Amino acid sequence: MKITRRVKEILANYESDNPGTKGNLARILMEGRLGGTGKMIILPVDQGFEHGPARSFAPNPAGYDPHYHYQMAIDAGLNAYAAPLGPLEAGADTFAGAIPTILKMNSANSLSRQKEGADQAVTSSVQDALRLGCAAIGFTIYPGSDAMYDQYEEIRELSAEAKSYGIPTVLWSYPRGGNVTKEGELAVDIIAYAAHMAALLGAHIIKVKLPNDYLENAEAKKVYLERQIATGTLPERVRHVMQSCFNGRRIVVFSGGAHKGEDAIFDDARAIRDGGGNGSIIGRNSFQRSREDALVLLDRLVKIYLGKE
Amino acid sequence: MKITRRVKEILANYESDNPGTKGNLARILMEGRLGGTGKMIILPVDQGFEHGPARSFAPNPAGYDPHYHYQMAIDAGLNAYAAPLGPLEAGADTFAGAIPTILKMNSANSLSRQKEGADQAVTSSVQDALRLGCAAIGFTIYPGSDAMYDQYEEIRELSAEAKSYGIPTVLWSYPRGGNVTKEGELAVDIIAYAAHMAALLGAHIIKVKLPNDYLENAEAKKVYLERQIATGTLPERVRHVMQSCFNGRRIVVFSGGAHKGEDAIFDDARAIRDGGGNGSIIGRNSFQRSREDALVLLDRLVKIYLGKE
Amino acid sequence: MKITRRVKEILANYESDNPGTKGNLARILMEGRLGGTGKMIILPVDQGFEHGPARSFAPNPAGYDPHYHYQMAIDAGLNAYAAPLGPLEAGADTFAGAIPTILKMNSANSLSRQKEGADQAVTSSVQDALRLGCAAIGFTIYPGSDAMYDQYEEIRELSAEAKSYGIPTVLWSYPRGGNVTKEGELAVDIIAYAAHMAALLGAHIIKVKLPNDYLENAEAKKVYLERQIATGTLPERVRHVMQSCFNGRRIVVFSGGAHKGEDAIFDDARAIRDGGGNGSIIGRNSFQRSREDALVLLDRLVKIYLGKE
Amino acid sequence: MKITRRVKEILANYESDNPGTKGNLARILMEGRLGGTGKMIILPVDQGFEHGPARSFAPNPAGYDPHYHYQMAIDAGLNAYAAPLGPLEAGADTFAGAIPTILKMNSANSLSRQKEGADQAVTSSVQDALRLGCAAIGFTIYPGSDAMYDQYEEIRELSAEAKSYGIPTVLWSYPRGGNVTKEGELAVDIIAYAAHMAALLGAHIIKVKLPNDYLENAEAKKVYLERQIATGTLPERVRHVMQSCFNGRRIVVFSGGAHKGEDAIFDDARAIRDGGGNGSIIGRNSFQRSREDALVLLDRLVKIYLGKE
Amino acid sequence: MKITRRVKEILANYESDNPGTKGNLARILMEGRLGGTGKMIILPVDQGFEHGPARSFAPNPAGYDPHYHYQMAIDAGLNAYAAPLGPLEAGADTFAGAIPTILKMNSANSLSRQKEGADQAVTSSVQDALRLGCAAIGFTIYPGSDAMYDQYEEIRELSAEAKSYGIPTVLWSYPRGGNVTKEGELAVDIIAYAAHMAALLGAHIIKVKLPNDYLENAEAKKVYLERQIATGTLPERVRHVMQSCFNGRRIVVFSGGAHKGEDAIFDDARAIRDGGGNGSIIGRNSFQRSREDALVLLDRLVKIYLGKE
Repeated sequence: MKITRRVKEILANYESDNPGTKGNLARILMEGRLGGTGKMIILPVDQGFEHGPARSFAPNPAGYDPHYHYQMAIDAGLNAYAAPLGPLEAGADTFAGAIPTILKMNSANSLSRQKEGADQAVTSSVQDALRLGCAAIGFTIYPGSDAMYDQYEEIRELSAEAKSYGIPTVLWSYPRGGNVTKEGELAVDIIAYAAHMAALLGAHIIKVKLPNDYLENAEAKKVYLERQIATGTLPERVRHVMQSCFNGRRIVVFSGGAHKGEDAIFDDARAIRDGGGNGSIIGRNSFQRSREDALVLLDRLVKIYLGKE
Repeated sequence: MKITRRVKEILANYESDNPGTKGNLARILMEGRLGGTGKMIILPVDQGFEHGPARSFAPNPAGYDPHYHYQMAIDAGLNAYAAPLGPLEAGADTFAGAIPTILKMNSANSLSRQKEGADQAVTSSVQDALRLGCAAIGFTIYPGSDAMYDQYEEIRELSAEAKSYGIPTVLWSYPRGGNVTKEGELAVDIIAYAAHMAALLGAHIIKVKLPNDYLENAEAKKVYLERQIATGTLPERVRHVMQSCFNGRRIVVFSGGAHKGEDAIFDDARAIRDGGGNGSIIGRNSFQRSREDALVLLDRLVKIYLGKE
Repeated sequence: MKITRRVKEILANYESDNPGTKGNLARILMEGRLGGTGKMIILPVDQGFEHGPARSFAPNPAGYDPHYHYQMAIDAGLNAYAAPLGPLEAGADTFAGAIPTILKMNSANSLSRQKEGADQAVTSSVQDALRLGCAAIGFTIYPGSDAMYDQYEEIRELSAEAKSYGIPTVLWSYPRGGNVTKEGELAVDIIAYAAHMAALLGAHIIKVKLPNDYLENAEAKKVYLERQIATGTLPERVRHVMQSCFNGRRIVVFSGGAHKGEDAIFDDARAIRDGGGNGSIIGRNSFQRSREDALVLLDRLVKIYLGKE
Repeated sequence: MKITRRVKEILANYESDNPGTKGNLARILMEGRLGGTGKMIILPVDQGFEHGPARSFAPNPAGYDPHYHYQMAIDAGLNAYAAPLGPLEAGADTFAGAIPTILKMNSANSLSRQKEGADQAVTSSVQDALRLGCAAIGFTIYPGSDAMYDQYEEIRELSAEAKSYGIPTVLWSYPRGGNVTKEGELAVDIIAYAAHMAALLGAHIIKVKLPNDYLENAEAKKVYLERQIATGTLPERVRHVMQSCFNGRRIVVFSGGAHKGEDAIFDDARAIRDGGGNGSIIGRNSFQRSREDALVLLDRLVKIYLGKE
Repeated sequence: MKITRRVKEILANYESDNPGTKGNLARILMEGRLGGTGKMIILPVDQGFEHGPARSFAPNPAGYDPHYHYQMAIDAGLNAYAAPLGPLEAGADTFAGAIPTILKMNSANSLSRQKEGADQAVTSSVQDALRLGCAAIGFTIYPGSDAMYDQYEEIRELSAEAKSYGIPTVLWSYPRGGNVTKEGELAVDIIAYAAHMAALLGAHIIKVKLPNDYLENAEAKKVYLERQIATGTLPERVRHVMQSCFNGRRIVVFSGGAHKGEDAIFDDARAIRDGGGNGSIIGRNSFQRSREDALVLLDRLVKIYLGKE
């Protein structure tokens, strides 16, 4: 597999990583229809933990079967499929070697009465990632929440162990709780901050939500206005998040959140592309559509990242 | 022992498991009068921890002797007998090789002042399961409770250890505590969610209570109504739970709860069968009857699963 | 990466392996110009240990540089590159993700006065394979030699450790020493025996030399003659070796030994193909030619395995 | 590298430390334009955790890139560069051996609603410091805060581990919380107390803020007045802090806090020098200026410590 | 410390190493009068183990004191000082940070009745190297000897441990025993082979004796003659050894063996320089002279490597 110049440039930013870790990043970056471009689309299916099966899969019941998602990621030419232990185990043999997988190691849970952003269980291990042939581990942090510090210490240990075995880490960084208001969860200053902290923690791939133009923190707001940091358009905000991740030295992918209309999804992707982001992580917006609709949607997303739309 | 086509199909769903783990699943699936059908009846006797001996065994004092339950499971042609460390140790030699056993590793305790759903002690080890020749380990989780995350992390470790030794895991998944109301504990959306989380955690066999048609969670309810998910009859609800366990890729058995009338028990079993469930786990309803009555009752249950009643 | 039907069939033979190990086998089987065909060509460069640098690389001094071999394997579209620790370390970063690598963990050494087939040092670890991102470990055994039993125990441990991390094992099986005469080292009964023992030891990929039609062992010879085992032609002998490796359930690749003429190499490859072998492992015959000549030679080998010549 | 007499005197104060730890102190003390003088300037860049990326780097956007800071520390001839895991990883290879680095292992976080001085996550390990070639670890304590005792126990363990590997500890000691009023955070009695506790905890290098002449604690105040402890001028206060750190047996560096005017910075440095302090740790005041301005500023600071201004 | 372009080029060859290991290589390469040139002179003092104190130090009794050698390495502007545990411990505090040290972990011993090339004791640990602040570990292998395989396995483990802590490995590779004749110990084919094996084992710095033009191995000789490998002059032989170490991707230093005349030593150094070698490791020829003579000699050696003589 000839690694493209663009992918080599990206890998070169991971200076302290061993070749095994870079090799797994390369597996993800070279996979699928965006392989070699430095762009990526990841299919994450971990909503079962947070929302339960019906809210996740009833809109498209084929999704109750974990094989469906493996096959969708392959057929749509995506870069990777992320899921918790159980679903990966359920298809790991049938799809061995067929698509890079990301073992999602913790997840929120809406049955808990603990307030939003509370700590989560770590439901699998780095050893699981190895025996299942995963290309990365995934982990969620909630910057701001009371669980934040515990989560930071958990990911420090898991990430260090994973790095020693040649496995990179994908961090889902969702600000919530603490001083973060509900509105602030999507504020551009807060999202940039959350992305930056994921980078500080040593993440290889950072996943945040697309920010809006709200500025939450008063101190930060002053700086944004004074320095005239451009955050008026979505591409500008994406660019600012990329800058906040070591000036583009880390891969950042964006999610669009809840199921929404196609045009909004395409607009988001163009903004990510134009702002220099690395791509999309798109779960409910693909697997809650019918397979046919999802394939059409993902095909257009791929084309957008290829610069064809 | 010729493994039947049906059992082979079931084993094939456990893709990432080593042959030792599949072999133990096969031992359970091929045992007794339902051996080879993909259906199973398990005799669980762990009420001593939760309710004490008199509440458990006074109705049928023969049950004070652990040998009684081993012998009952064998004589009734059941698939497995599940119990905590002590009772298994008390009969493991006499009944070595005679019936697959499941080592129940944690249990609730009504002496504790901790509120329902609090964490439980892990009272035995995977090493115990090996030296006692058990075919599986069993573990209870309480989705929703404050102890939930600790329990998830406990079962992650125990299950990973057990899998490495070729031992499958049976998860008792009982929603309670947290955002789950008393009524919600049997709500179909909550039971399906609890079963789904057991699957996400990597369980091989999932044990839940039979759900009623109540819908607890407002967000979920909306989806059930919108998508017209059929949950009006018990078979429909069983079918929905099976779907929620990786579209039937995991074995699910159902319990009926407290001692009740025979007709209700038989109706439950027919519903489990008709909804595609894998069988019953039936404790108090068998061992709190006299041996004769219990054998008659279990004989009819077997016949129901064989499609003869 | 859509895994081909042929590769899926091959992977299905590795029944007890975890998905990680199958995934790495898939990486090798899907790589390069033979990717997906079930055939493979591996470039091994470990002659430095056995013959020293000048005997290995003077015929084509570009080969003194480990990068040369990585690049050759990539440019020729081969399936994998095998080498000891030092050379893999010297290029692992530049070529991260670009070509599956096999960490050759032991090697003979011609400075030793110990008789041929004596034990070898294990010069790297499974942890090295992980941090370098290797797709497999490689190990040489000398069936017949006094070191044989030690080697079998070494590979038992290394292979078990590697399997637990999702890394398959390639066994170089060279009969020598003990009751094996110099002539017998290539005898068809002995080579088939050596290949079979590698399979018995749990190897995923077996590497032997192409056998001639000599029959070494008197007892064995009787059976070959009695049963009229076809070993008269090279394809027949390849077929017999494949049969000896669990009737084709294990991947077997063949080497041609010392540098020789091109026609002989092509004839060998056609025989391997026609006998149902999985491919060639070709070291000196490629890297001791000039890069241009080697690329031409490897191109023809690829075409032979593709059935085009 | 001929260690100067002055540096040897300083090293001699670290009586119980192994030569590895002293060697790393020497690396820092001998580096850059102040190398050998016993004075030092350290560039710390960990504000991203506490203030987020925009507040930290928008004033000089080049600073979003971790390489910028490595290069600045080298070009300005500083003694060391301190940062959390992520930024060090992002440049550790490019700048291997080029500048001593300090791995900042914990950091505050302004998204948290926990009151100031609450505990912080430990976001890296001593093993990280070793693989990244760091010359020291850095850690923040909040004397006075509720988290104080936990922090003391954390640094006890980290520091003991680091010392065993030859790595010294830099303690950032910031009094806050508990009985410390907002005004008291800079009071000379409190700062001296905080510095002293860092020394008591076994720190090799102590970092405090420059104190003002306020006296916070009533009991202490009495002593200061009775004993006529000179704290009227900044040099006197620096001298008092040095005295509080084992009468000058420990290295103490001072920070100036938020971005401020150049003259104030130079006055501070002269006071540190004249009071016998070991130097400055200067973050925002350098990296929030343009590179040109920062180099001019740092050049003058160096000259001040060299006694030339 | 601005790393020179030449040193950066050398470090870039150590692709799979972590920044800590590269940083320690940089410390050695940037030290002393040759710092930054890519050339190096190392002072090794481990003859005490092999020849006893009188044979080692009587010619210049100042050398009985380990401080003498530390000071000599510093005063002469060398790159590093290598010694066993005891001597390093005896001066490590006095000279902390003053000169990179190499912990020589095994050594021959002439009291043993075991024949030459027998195994050696490992007399210190990687943990010792850390607590003493060493920049590298050193280890001797005897390619050819009966102890060879044990030595290879020892260095595999020590080197892997050291690499994980950021410490590089220097391998002394002395062919002897086995098929190597006394004359062959300096034969160019054998020395090149021994150097190559050190590289295969993952050494960072390789130390061999300067070879003569004898060709020992019949098979190798044929290749040298056929391919007209230039080995007639010492620079040609040095060049051939460098080529044998991954075409110059590994640092190689040469020793001259027993005490000899100054002119011979200077001729050797010019040959090493002209052949592209990285430098000299010079023990007895320096410490068995008086301090004055040794300083004059080392001064001229430095000048030779600087191209001034």
